[in-house]
Formats: sequence, structure tokens, C-alpha cells
Amino acid sequence: MLFHVRMDVEIPHDLDPDIRAETVAREKAYSQELQRSGKWPHIWRIVGEYSNFSIFDVADNDELHAILSGLPLFPYMNIKVTPLATHPSDIAAG
Amino acid sequence: MLFHVRMDVEIPHDLDPDIRAETVAREKAYSQELQRSGKWPHIWRIVGEYSNFSIFDVADNDELHAILSGLPLFPYMNIKVTPLATHPSDIAAG
Amino acid sequence: MLFHVRMDVEIPHDLDPDIRAETVAREKAYSQELQRSGKWPHIWRIVGEYSNFSIFDVADNDELHAILSGLPLFPYMNIKVTPLATHPSDIAAG
Amino acid sequence: MLFHVRMDVEIPHDLDPDIRAETVAREKAYSQELQRSGKWPHIWRIVGEYSNFSIFDVADNDELHAILSGLPLFPYMNIKVTPLATHPSDIAAG
Amino acid sequence: MLFHVRMDVEIPHDLDPDIRAETVAREKAYSQELQRSGKWPHIWRIVGEYSNFSIFDVADNDELHAILSGLPLFPYMNIKVTPLATHPSDIAAG
Amino acid sequence: MLFHVRMDVEIPHDLDPDIRAETVAREKAYSQELQRSGKWPHIWRIVGEYSNFSIFDVADNDELHAILSGLPLFPYMNIKVTPLATHPSDIAAG
Amino acid sequence: MLFHVRMDVEIPHDLDPDIRAETVAREKAYSQELQRSGKWPHIWRIVGEYSNFSIFDVADNDELHAILSGLPLFPYMNIKVTPLATHPSDIAAG
Amino acid sequence: MLFHVRMDVEIPHDLDPDIRAETVAREKAYSQELQRSGKWPHIWRIVGEYSNFSIFDVADNDELHAILSGLPLFPYMNIKVTPLATHPSDIAAG
Amino acid sequence: MLFHVRMDVEIPHDLDPDIRAETVAREKAYSQELQRSGKWPHIWRIVGEYSNFSIFDVADNDELHAILSGLPLFPYMNIKVTPLATHPSDIAAG
Amino acid sequence: MLFHVRMDVEIPHDLDPDIRAETVAREKAYSQELQRSGKWPHIWRIVGEYSNFSIFDVADNDELHAILSGLPLFPYMNIKVTPLATHPSDIAAG
Repeated sequence: MLFHVRMDVEIPHDLDPDIRAETVAREKAYSQELQRSGKWPHIWRIVGEYSNFSIFDVADNDELHAILSGLPLFPYMNIKVTPLATHPSDIAAG
Repeated sequence: MLFHVRMDVEIPHDLDPDIRAETVAREKAYSQELQRSGKWPHIWRIVGEYSNFSIFDVADNDELHAILSGLPLFPYMNIKVTPLATHPSDIAAG
Repeated sequence: MLFHVRMDVEIPHDLDPDIRAETVAREKAYSQELQRSGKWPHIWRIVGEYSNFSIFDVADNDELHAILSGLPLFPYMNIKVTPLATHPSDIAAG
Repeated sequence: MLFHVRMDVEIPHDLDPDIRAETVAREKAYSQELQRSGKWPHIWRIVGEYSNFSIFDVADNDELHAILSGLPLFPYMNIKVTPLATHPSDIAAG
Repeated sequence: MLFHVRMDVEIPHDLDPDIRAETVAREKAYSQELQRSGKWPHIWRIVGEYSNFSIFDVADNDELHAILSGLPLFPYMNIKVTPLATHPSDIAAG
Repeated sequence: MLFHVRMDVEIPHDLDPDIRAETVAREKAYSQELQRSGKWPHIWRIVGEYSNFSIFDVADNDELHAILSGLPLFPYMNIKVTPLATHPSDIAAG
Repeated sequence: MLFHVRMDVEIPHDLDPDIRAETVAREKAYSQELQRSGKWPHIWRIVGEYSNFSIFDVADNDELHAILSGLPLFPYMNIKVTPLATHPSDIAAG
Repeated sequence: MLFHVRMDVEIPHDLDPDIRAETVAREKAYSQELQRSGKWPHIWRIVGEYSNFSIFDVADNDELHAILSGLPLFPYMNIKVTPLATHPSDIAAG
Repeated sequence: MLFHVRMDVEIPHDLDPDIRAETVAREKAYSQELQRSGKWPHIWRIVGEYSNFSIFDVADNDELHAILSGLPLFPYMNIKVTPLATHPSDIAAG
Repeated sequence: MLFHVRMDVEIPHDLDPDIRAETVAREKAYSQELQRSGKWPHIWRIVGEYSNFSIFDVADNDELHAILSGLPLFPYMNIKVTPLATHPSDIAAG
């Protein structure tokens, strides 16, 4: 089941640089593990912003919330989730 | 080059039903031809709305505008385009 | 799987009164059938508005979109869907 | 009498971790006591956000304000209350 | 129990003038009857707008919705309801 | 002359607790003195928020600004003033 | 007593051209009479918009509402009123 | 003197097609004449929208308003003007 | 050439009180000098807010930006500039 | 390929003044190098704001994001990118 997610990151300017670097590194590893598992099939950077559009493919709402709230940068993010359905014009849906 | 596009459709209630049906049918054919060409790799219905999120893969801004302004439903749509860049955590990015 | 839905109804003032009455009647029947099936467990009127908050319990996003886009008043509604997860403090979740 | 409430939690990043943990624990106990009493019949997590939609069943506006302003996390919340009425299509309203 | 209500009126420009005048006259009579009953203790015009702020004193949410949805101008209004509680500084509350 | 005022209070979390308590106490005394004088005839708490709707009855705009900018909590408030006129349906106006 | 007013005009495209011209002419005469009386000391066009910023100098809120609601274009305007007070830095206030 | 202008065009769907075509043609001629005169040095289409960003180089505010309000499509446009100053980093600013 | 300017002041609560007082005093002197020069013909306090509406009469956009960015409180202000043109109904416009 | 970019700068008030000055100086050098290269053909100050409108001429979305995220002030900016296409009325478009 697919969901569209927008994530906007706002890390406080006074966060300790080591904690910041370590958190960002953990975020990347966490994201890539989910990408490899197939649960996070797309992630795109929004040009000019510390933000991304992502597509998640999960079993249900609870799994999606578990994934998102487990993001190392979750405390510094605004996240907006939109559920997706098959589009009637989608040639892949046939 | 990838772009994220949100399309919200609002067809006037007093549009002639035949024109409406014919326009929607042309829209579907137009979309599917672009999907087959690879220029419109993703289209998802937003649950509960007459709207979609789409991803376009085009040569440049002018090609994207030509495609979008050529949509049969273009006069009845609000469209919002967001340019996308490769995300540094994207495992497909190499 | 639960979803929170807000529906705002705006029927054009110049809609034929018979069509209006018939559509509203079909909407009520459609809603009550889904309530009886367990897929639409809650519907509340927002005080002072031609709007409701509803909870849907469906198998997946596609089923929810099929239900919502099938509403007789769908062409006259603005709908906003929010996916819900189990709250960690919910005593019913235990 | 039913009310729809949205709560968005924003705990300052520099809050002492012990105070934070203790406040969150008190919040959970406070919520669950009200759930058991029947005054807080529903609480759902909004997927991807530190937020919830809740339904309260209280005697009047003053009781609702007393409950909400007594939330241990109240100083860190934005709260939006919407009064609910019986929906004419509600099969439970009989 | 008190509620704060903002009403914004937008009557379509092409409404038949007789229907318009008759509806506005019924609105006034309806409002004044509720004012006399004590259920609508305050109504103020917002300067420069076809709008009012009102205070309602009703038994519960259902009664308020019945009153508001019965307004002759209801189909042409946007209404926003805010529940009120006693303010701790209110000298009348003591 | 009547004015509708919405006040939203946001006291910084790191304000010294003694200063906070003392300021809140002064605010209450200041408000009650104005209520007794007849210049602040109504104050209502907005349910679930650290906010109020108030009605002021003052000689002119300058007097209202002097009163509002003299509020002990003024530096921590967002205030929105709306001038009120007599409503043509008001039975008390007549 | 001074008020700042923003007026945005939106005349329906299908209004009879003669009625439109006659209404605009009456609006101009109405405005100029109030300017000559001293009650409407300033009116400025907002560049690029069918809108103006105006300053009114009136006895009280009721007089201002009477003036504004009497504007021939009032049914086609959105109006926003802001009460003004003397600024402590104003050299004319001294 | 430079101004940044955003124009959003919304032509009513029921406008006579001949009037529409003739107005759009006049708009183009009007724009190109101003471009040739140097007063409208830049015009760009916003991708996916019936909108443009433009730069105007005019003597003063009154000239800009005269130009914009004379646009054949002016009655169908929303226009937003932003005055521009020399940027301290501009290498062309000398 | 006239411009309408709205200034909203938000001085950080933890600013040193002496710096604050000195900056506010310099702001007043700066403003009054410009008022005396004729470049800042009007300044009004917005009732209930730490904000003003002002009218500036300057040679061009660059002069206006130089004046505004030189305000001692500029780092703590949100400023919104709107260019003004002569209104066709203005009796002072000749 | 052209893009329209709005940048709003908000440097924290408690940033070390030397770091601030050094960052602003690096920003200017970075911007001017890109202007000289032809990739940043226009930059204008928005009057009254610590903001600019810019036009970028880049090969693709990735290059634009690399440039923008490399801005020394990037951590203190809100950036909004809009892709531009050739306008059909543009006399320079041939």
C-alpha cells in the first residue's frame, strides 16, 4: 500500500555538531536499509530545500507510523503523509 | 530530469456531459501515451480527492510546460510543479 | 485500518431541487449501508457547518478511495483524508 | 456531549530529558484514567506526526477545558476543539 | 453553555431580489425570536463586512447546530463555532 | 464603542517561574479592575487554548490601545482587534 | 478617530455593462463627497490591483460601518478594517 | 525603476470563444509593444500554470499601474507587484 | 512616489534591556528625522499590536530600501511594502 | 534552463557577530562568482526585506540544488524554486 510523504528537516542551529553529524549519518543508514527492503521505494530531494518527497510501500498505517517515528531526524522534522490509490489512467495498474 | 507535479481537477458542474466525458477520455489517452513514452513514469490518485501526484521525466522545463499545458483537462486544473534532485541517501543514485 | 476523513459539502445554489433532494437521499442510504457493514464506524456533524468528521475502517487505500469517490455527493465535496495509527496511550490497544 | 480535538505536541529540544520523560509518563497516565472514565472515548495517532485526533464526551465546555488545560503536556501543545452534533445519517442516532 | 460564532454571509448576486428580501426578513425575525428567548444573547456587526460575531447560550451542541442550520440564510453563510469556558479572571464568574 | 479582541498568550518556556507567576497575577488584577470599570464587559476562555475572546467598551481607538498595550502579558501575546457596530437585528439596539 | 481600510473590488464578469458603469460612477461621487467632508482623508490605488488602501476619520464604529456599507460597490467588495491609534513617534502627535 | 510582477490568469470558462481569442491576441500585441519599448524587459511562463513572472522597468508607480490596468486580460488576472532594489551583491550594480 | 508599509516588530525576549531601550530610542529619532524631512509623511499604530502602518514618499525603490534597512529595529521587524498609485477618485489628484 | 528563486534570510540574533560577518562575506563572493559564470544572471533585493528574487540559468535540477545548498547562508534561508519556461509572448524567444 503506497503513501506519499513530504519531510521538511529543521535542525536547531545550536545542536552540538557531533550529535548532528552522528544523527544525520544514522538517518542515512536507516533510510537506505528501508530502501533496500522495498518499503521506501522512492526518495527525492526538493530543489533548494532541506526536504524530500518520498514514497513508502507498507502493510498498513501502523507500520508507516513506526517507520516514520523511528527516523533519527524525526524530532527535527515536519512530516505530511498522503495516502495513495491506484490511478485509473495508470498503465501499470492494468 | 525529474519533476513532482500535483494536479487538482475541478470541472465546472454545468459543463456539457458529452464534452466532459470526451475530455476525460482524451485526458486518459494523452496520459497513457506519455506514460508509455517514459516521460510520465508515475501517477497516483490522492485518496478522496479528484487529484493526483505525478512524476515527470523530461528534457527540460519547456518540455514539461508543453506536456502540462497540452493536457485536455488543463483548463480545469490547478497544477503545482516542484523540481526534484537526486537525494544523497538514494541507493539508486549510485 | 482506520482513516480520519473530513467532508465539506457545497452544493451549487442553482442545482435542480429534485436532483438535490434525490442526491441527498442517495447519500444517506449509501452512508448507512457502509455504517451497517462496519466500514464507516463513526460520522459526526460539525456544529454550524454542512460538514462531517468521519472514521473509516477499510482494508486499504484503494478501498477507501472507491468508497469516497462513490459518494453521491462526491462531486460537491471537499474531502481531506488522514491516516490513523494506534496511539501508545490508547487503553483499547493494549 | 461530544467534541473533536486535535492535539499537536511540540516539546522544546532543550527540555531536560528527565523532566520530559516524567511529563510524558504523567500524560499517559492522565489520558488513560480519562479513557477509563468514559470521558475520552477515542484517541488516534496521526501517522507521521507527534499529534492525535481525540473524541471527548463531557458534560459541558467548562469540563472539557478543565480536562485539556490539565494535560501534563498542555504547555507544549497546540489544541484545536470542534464541537460535534449528531449526524442525521448516523445509524446509531436512531 | 456559551459558544462564540462568526457568521459570514455571501448571497449570490443573481438570487431573485424578492427571494433575497424575504429571506433576509425571515432571518431577522428568526434571530430576534432567539434573542428574546435568551439563547442568542449577543450579536454584533463586524465593521465593513456582511458578517457578525454572536454569542449563543444553549443546552448543548445539538441544540446549537439545530439553531444555526435553521437560519434562513444558512445556505449562504460560512459559520465558525468556538466553544467558550469561564475565564479565571472573569469577575462575573466568582 | 465596542471592540472584539482575541488574545493568544505564549509565555516563553524558559521565563523565570517567579516572574511568570507575578506577571500572571498582575494580569488578573489589571483585567478585573477594567472589568469593574465597565471598560472590559466580557472575557471568555477559548476551550483548549491559552486564549480569550473579549469585548471592550471604550471611548476611542487610543484608549483601547493604551489598555491593551498596558496588559502585563502584552509582550507575550498576539492580539487581534475587530471594531464592532450595532447589528440591525439586535433587539437591544432598538 | 482614524481607521485603515483595504477594499478589494470584484465585479462579476456577467454584470450588465450599463449597471456596472452607473454603479462605478455613483461610487466615485459617493467617495468624493466623503473626501470633501473630511471623513475619507486618504485613498490610494494599490498598484496592479482593483483595490485601494484608505484612511477614514469618523466619530465612531457605527458611522464607519454606515459609510462602508453604503458604498455603491459594497456588494462586490471585500473590506478589511483596522483601527488606528496615535503612534508614539508621530511628530504630528506631540 | 524595477518591479517584480506575478500575473495569474483565470478566464471564465463561459467567455465567448471569439472574445477570448481576440482578447488573448490583443494581450500579446500589448505585451510585445511594451517589451520593445524596454518597459517590460522580462516575461517568463511559470511551468504548469497560466501565469507569468515579469520584470517591469518604469518611471514610477503610476506608470506601472497604468500599464498593468491597461492589460487586455486585466479583468481576468490576479496581479501581485513587488518593488525591487539593487542587491548589494549584484555585479552589474557597480 | 508613495509606498504603503506595514511593520511588525518582534524584539527577542532575551535581548539585553539596555540594548533594547537604546535601540528603541534610536528608532524614534530616526523615524522623526525622516518625518520632518517629508519622506515619512504618515505613521499610525495598529491598535493592540506592536506594529504600524506607514506611508513613505521617496524618489525611488532604492531610496525606500535604504531607509527601511537602516531602521535601528530592522533586524527585529517583518516589513511588507506595497506600491501606491493615484486613485482615480482622489479629489486631491486633480 | 531558467529557474526563479526566492530567498528569505533569517540569521539567528544570537549568532556570533564574527561568524555572521564572515558568512555574509563568503555569501557575497560565492554569489558574485556564479554571476560572473553566467549561472546566476539576475539578483534583486526585495524592498524592505532581507530577501531576494533571483534567476538561475543552469544545466539541470541537480546543478541548481548543488548551487543553492552550497550557499554559505543556506542554513539560515528559506528558499522557494519555480521552474520557468519560455513565454509565448516573449519577443526574445524568437
